[in-house]
Amino acid sequence: MRHLQHKLAIARGEIPAELLFKNGRLVNVLSGEIHEASVAVDDGRVVGLGDYKARRTIDLRGAYIAPSLIDGHFHLESSQLTASEFARAVVPHGTGAVVIDPHEYANVLGLDGIRYVLESTKNLPLDFFIMLPSCVPATPLETAGARITADDLALMIADDRIAGVAELMNYPGVYLGLKSELDKIAVGKGKAVDGHAPGLRGKNLNAYALAGVRSDHESTELEEAREKLRLGLHILLREGSTERNLAALAPLVNSHNAVNCSFATDDKLASDLAAEGHIDHAVREAIRHGLAPISALQIATINTARHYRLHNLGAIAPRFWADFIIFDDLKTFIVRQTYKKGVLVASDGKYLAKPSAATPLPRGTMNLRYAPGDLQVKCGRPRKMRVIEIVPDQIVTRQIVTTAKVENGLAVADVTRDLLKLVVVERHRATGNVGVGFVRGFKLRDGALGSTVAHDAHNVVVVGVNDADIIVAIQELAQLQGGQVAVQGGMVKACLGLPIAGLVSDRSLEEVIHRLDELNAAARALGCELAAPFMTLSFLSLSPIPELKLTDQGLIDASRMRKTSLFCP
Amino acid sequence: MRHLQHKLAIARGEIPAELLFKNGRLVNVLSGEIHEASVAVDDGRVVGLGDYKARRTIDLRGAYIAPSLIDGHFHLESSQLTASEFARAVVPHGTGAVVIDPHEYANVLGLDGIRYVLESTKNLPLDFFIMLPSCVPATPLETAGARITADDLALMIADDRIAGVAELMNYPGVYLGLKSELDKIAVGKGKAVDGHAPGLRGKNLNAYALAGVRSDHESTELEEAREKLRLGLHILLREGSTERNLAALAPLVNSHNAVNCSFATDDKLASDLAAEGHIDHAVREAIRHGLAPISALQIATINTARHYRLHNLGAIAPRFWADFIIFDDLKTFIVRQTYKKGVLVASDGKYLAKPSAATPLPRGTMNLRYAPGDLQVKCGRPRKMRVIEIVPDQIVTRQIVTTAKVENGLAVADVTRDLLKLVVVERHRATGNVGVGFVRGFKLRDGALGSTVAHDAHNVVVVGVNDADIIVAIQELAQLQGGQVAVQGGMVKACLGLPIAGLVSDRSLEEVIHRLDELNAAARALGCELAAPFMTLSFLSLSPIPELKLTDQGLIDASRMRKTSLFCP
Repeated sequence: MRHLQHKLAIARGEIPAELLFKNGRLVNVLSGEIHEASVAVDDGRVVGLGDYKARRTIDLRGAYIAPSLIDGHFHLESSQLTASEFARAVVPHGTGAVVIDPHEYANVLGLDGIRYVLESTKNLPLDFFIMLPSCVPATPLETAGARITADDLALMIADDRIAGVAELMNYPGVYLGLKSELDKIAVGKGKAVDGHAPGLRGKNLNAYALAGVRSDHESTELEEAREKLRLGLHILLREGSTERNLAALAPLVNSHNAVNCSFATDDKLASDLAAEGHIDHAVREAIRHGLAPISALQIATINTARHYRLHNLGAIAPRFWADFIIFDDLKTFIVRQTYKKGVLVASDGKYLAKPSAATPLPRGTMNLRYAPGDLQVKCGRPRKMRVIEIVPDQIVTRQIVTTAKVENGLAVADVTRDLLKLVVVERHRATGNVGVGFVRGFKLRDGALGSTVAHDAHNVVVVGVNDADIIVAIQELAQLQGGQVAVQGGMVKACLGLPIAGLVSDRSLEEVIHRLDELNAAARALGCELAAPFMTLSFLSLSPIPELKLTDQGLIDASRMRKTSLFCP
Repeated sequence: MRHLQHKLAIARGEIPAELLFKNGRLVNVLSGEIHEASVAVDDGRVVGLGDYKARRTIDLRGAYIAPSLIDGHFHLESSQLTASEFARAVVPHGTGAVVIDPHEYANVLGLDGIRYVLESTKNLPLDFFIMLPSCVPATPLETAGARITADDLALMIADDRIAGVAELMNYPGVYLGLKSELDKIAVGKGKAVDGHAPGLRGKNLNAYALAGVRSDHESTELEEAREKLRLGLHILLREGSTERNLAALAPLVNSHNAVNCSFATDDKLASDLAAEGHIDHAVREAIRHGLAPISALQIATINTARHYRLHNLGAIAPRFWADFIIFDDLKTFIVRQTYKKGVLVASDGKYLAKPSAATPLPRGTMNLRYAPGDLQVKCGRPRKMRVIEIVPDQIVTRQIVTTAKVENGLAVADVTRDLLKLVVVERHRATGNVGVGFVRGFKLRDGALGSTVAHDAHNVVVVGVNDADIIVAIQELAQLQGGQVAVQGGMVKACLGLPIAGLVSDRSLEEVIHRLDELNAAARALGCELAAPFMTLSFLSLSPIPELKLTDQGLIDASRMRKTSLFCP
C-alpha cells in the first residue's frame, strides 16, 4: 500500500492518479443524490471526486457508477459453494461485501470451522465479514460436532474481520435473561449483535431489544417489522431462495427510516444466485415495490456498511475503497461491470478475477458408527405411531398419527400411504446414535434420498422406501465424505460430494448447479413432487422448529422441546 | 444501577416499571414517524414501549414526546458559564447532551484544562462529551498557556466521555500532510475526527477528507456544504450567536441525506442561550426553512448521537436513556418539559435540577510582567503606521496605513480619527511580552476596555484612549484573576470577573448576563457603537485570521502568517 502522503499529493492534484472514471453519473449515497462526477482512484482507494489527471482514464459515457452492493446477513453454506466459487456467482451481480454467519460450519467444526472460513474468504474480489455463531448447538436435542460458549466467542471477537455476534436464535433465552445468552451479547459490545426473532412481538420483543440485540431479519409481516423498527432494531429485508419478505416489508421503508434497513439473503442456492442474482435482485425488487432508487441503493450499500462498521465501504468518496458497480438504467438495474479496489473483476456477467490459491480443506467430518439393525423398528402388531408431515416450502412440520404397516415384526415404509422411513445417523463423533421415524410428503415410490446437510447439527439424514437403499445412501455419503445422494435399486443415481464439512462442495459453481439439477431430477424420477426435496430433507432434523422432528437422539416434540416416542402409548 | 435482569422482567411485563409516560405522541426518530405510544422507564432507562404497569404514571394527554436535543459542536467557554450554569440555561430548552471542544481552556491550561472540564461537567442533568482540542496553540505567533501534541491527545483519548479529536483548524496542514496533523487524526481512530475548513473547496478539500477528517461546521454557502457532504464529511449546521448558517444551508438538507447532518452552535453567548434558546432554536429555524419536522428532529437527536457514538442517546426505545422533551406543537416547537434519565429537570422554562457539588477551580492563570513604559511607542516624527481596522460583526480585520499622532516623542491615540491604542500583555508565564498597536473602529472617546478572553491564546487585550486607563484596566483584570472590564477616568465602570482560566465566570447565569449588559452599556457610554464590543476585542489577537492582528509578540500580518512592524519602512 502506497503511503498516505502519495495519495494526498494526488488528491491535491499535484501528481496524476492511477485511474480516472470520467463522465459518470455518481450515485452519491452520502448526499442522497445522483450527480455527474469523475472519480480518481489510486492504489485501490478513491482519492478524489473531480477533474483529475490520471495515467489511465475510463470513460463511463454517462453510465451510473455506484458503490458495490453489500449483503447484511448470509449463510455461505446455503450456497454449498466455497467462498471463491461464491464470488464467481455474485461478483458479476455487483456484490462487493458480504456479512456472513458461518453457523453451519461452526455446528460441524466448531472454532476450526470459523477459522477455515476466515482463511478461505481472504484474497478474493469480495470482502467477507464474519459474525460469530451464537447458537451452537441449536438445542441439546441433537448431537452437533461442537459446542460454542461465550468464552469461545470472546477468543475471536477482536479480529478485524469479525463484525460481531451472529443471530441470537435462542430468543426466549435472551428475553428471559439466560446468563449464557446475555454473556454472548456482552461479547459483541462495540461490534454488531444480530437478532433472530421470528414473530416476536409486544413485551417480550421489548425485552429482547433491551437485552442488547440490535437487528432482526426474520420479519415476514409488515406490522411485525414496524414494531421491531420502532424498538430500535436494524431491519434486514430478506430476499433469499425460499424466504422472500421484501414484498411484504417494502411498505415500511421510506427515506426517513431507510438508514435503519439493510438487504440480506440469509440462505440462497447457487442456482438462484447465478440466475436471479444477489443483492442486485433485492434492489430491483425494492424499486419495483415503489422505493426511491436512491433509498434502495443506500440500503444496499452505506446503511449496511455503517450498521456493521465495515470501514471505508459503501460509498464513493475520498478514503473509501474503489469498489464500484457500473450500470446503465436505474429502473432495470442490470449491473454491467463490477470493480474491486479499482480493478475490473466482472463485466457483462463474466467473472474476470484470477483464481486465488486454494485454502487447505478442513479435516474430514464423517465419523459414523451404525449397524443395519439400528434402522429396524420392532413392532409386533399394528400400532398407532407419530409421523412427521411435511408442509411444502416451509421449515415447520406437522405431526400426524397413523397406524404402522408391519412386516415380519417390523414397522416398515408404506408407499401406498406415502409413509416413508426417515433415518438420522450421528456423524461427528461416532456415538452410534441413530434416530428412526416415518415421514409423509416425499411421495417416493422407490429408492432413497440422503444428505449430510441437515440443520442444525448436520448429521446424516436419509428418507427411503427400504432399508437396503437407505444403507446404500449412507455408505455413499460416507464414501463422499459428506454430500447429497439419490439411490434406487442399490445404485447411486445422482450425487453431489460435499467434502468440506459435509456441507460445501469443492467443485465449481457450474458443476454444483449441474449436479444439483441431476439430484432433483433423480428425486422426481423416484416420485418426489417437492420443489426442493433436499432442502426439505435438510430441515427435518431442525429441532428448534415445530412441530415434530427427528434427530440422532430420536423423535423430537419441537413445540415442547423434548423427546417423544415413535409409538403412541 | 439496578440489574439488567430486573429491567428485563419489567420489559416482559412481569413487574411494574418505575414510571410510565402514557398517551404521548412519540417522535420516533428510528422509524421516522410520529405514533401514539406509552413509554415505560425504570432506573433512568427506557425499558419498553407499550401498555405497561407502573408505580407512577404521567399522562401526556396527547403531547409530543421526543428524545432530548444534542448539540454537535460547542465551545462551552463562549457562554462564559460553568457547566452547571450552562445547564441551567439550556436544559429548559430541551438540551440533553452537548459535544464540546474545550479549545479555550486548553489554550490557557493545557491538559489540566481538559481535566477540569471532564470533572466539572459530571453529575449534571446534561451529558457532556468532549472532543480533544487539536490546535493548541493556534499558531507560533502568539504565546498561549500550553502546547498540546498528538502524544498528549493519545493520553486522554480512551476516556469514555472523550468522543474524539476536535476540529482540525490547521486545514492546510492537514491537506498538505504535515506529520503533526496526521498524527492527531490517527489518535482519533475509532472515534470522531472533526474538521474546520472555512471556504475549502475542490482538490484540497478532497485531500482534507482523504486524510481522515470526518466533519465540518464552517460552511457558510450552500454549494460549499454540498461539496463537503458529497465528499463524505458530516455537516454540522451551525446556528450560534454570530455565525448563523442555517438559512443558507437548509436547502441542502433532505430526508435522503439528513442522516449526515447535525445541529451545532459553535459559540453562543449566555444571553442568547437564555433568550433565544439552543438546539431548539435550530430545530425551529430548520422547520421554518422547510425541513420536514421529523428530519429536523432526527438531525437534532439520533444523527448526532450516531456520528459521535454517544451510546444509548438520541432515541426513545428500549436500552436508551430516558432523556425526553415534551412539547405541544410541531410548528412552534416550544419545549415545555425536559426529562433526564426519567427525572423532570425543567418545566415551563424553569430549571428544576438540584445544584451539584462545586468542582474545585483550576489554578489561577494571571501571571503578568510589564512596566508602564512597555505601553509607550517611541516616535520622533509623524510616521506612517499600520493600523488594524475592524470589520463589524466579522473576525477578519483589514490593514490600513495612516500617519501616527505624536506627542512628546510618543505615538498616541487620536480620538478625532478613531485611532485607539491596542495593547496585548502575555499573561500565562510572565514572559514580559507586550504587543502595542493601533486600531480603528471602536470609536471610544474616553477610557479603555479590557479582556482576558482573547482568541486563541487568551492574553490580556486592552483598547484605550490613554495609557493611564489602559493600565487601570490591566490592573483590574489582574485583580479579578481574569475578566472583562470598562474603565473611565481611572475608575472601573463595569466588570465581569472570569476567574476560571480568565475565560469563565464562577457566578450565576443571571449575574453573568447582567454584568455583560452593564459592560456593554459602559462601552456604549464611552462612545462605542459596535454590537458586541468585547467579542470584537476578543478576536483582535486571533493570529490565524487575516488581515492584521496584534498578539503579545507584536503586530501580525495574518495573511502571510508572519510578524510585521508597526511603522512602515
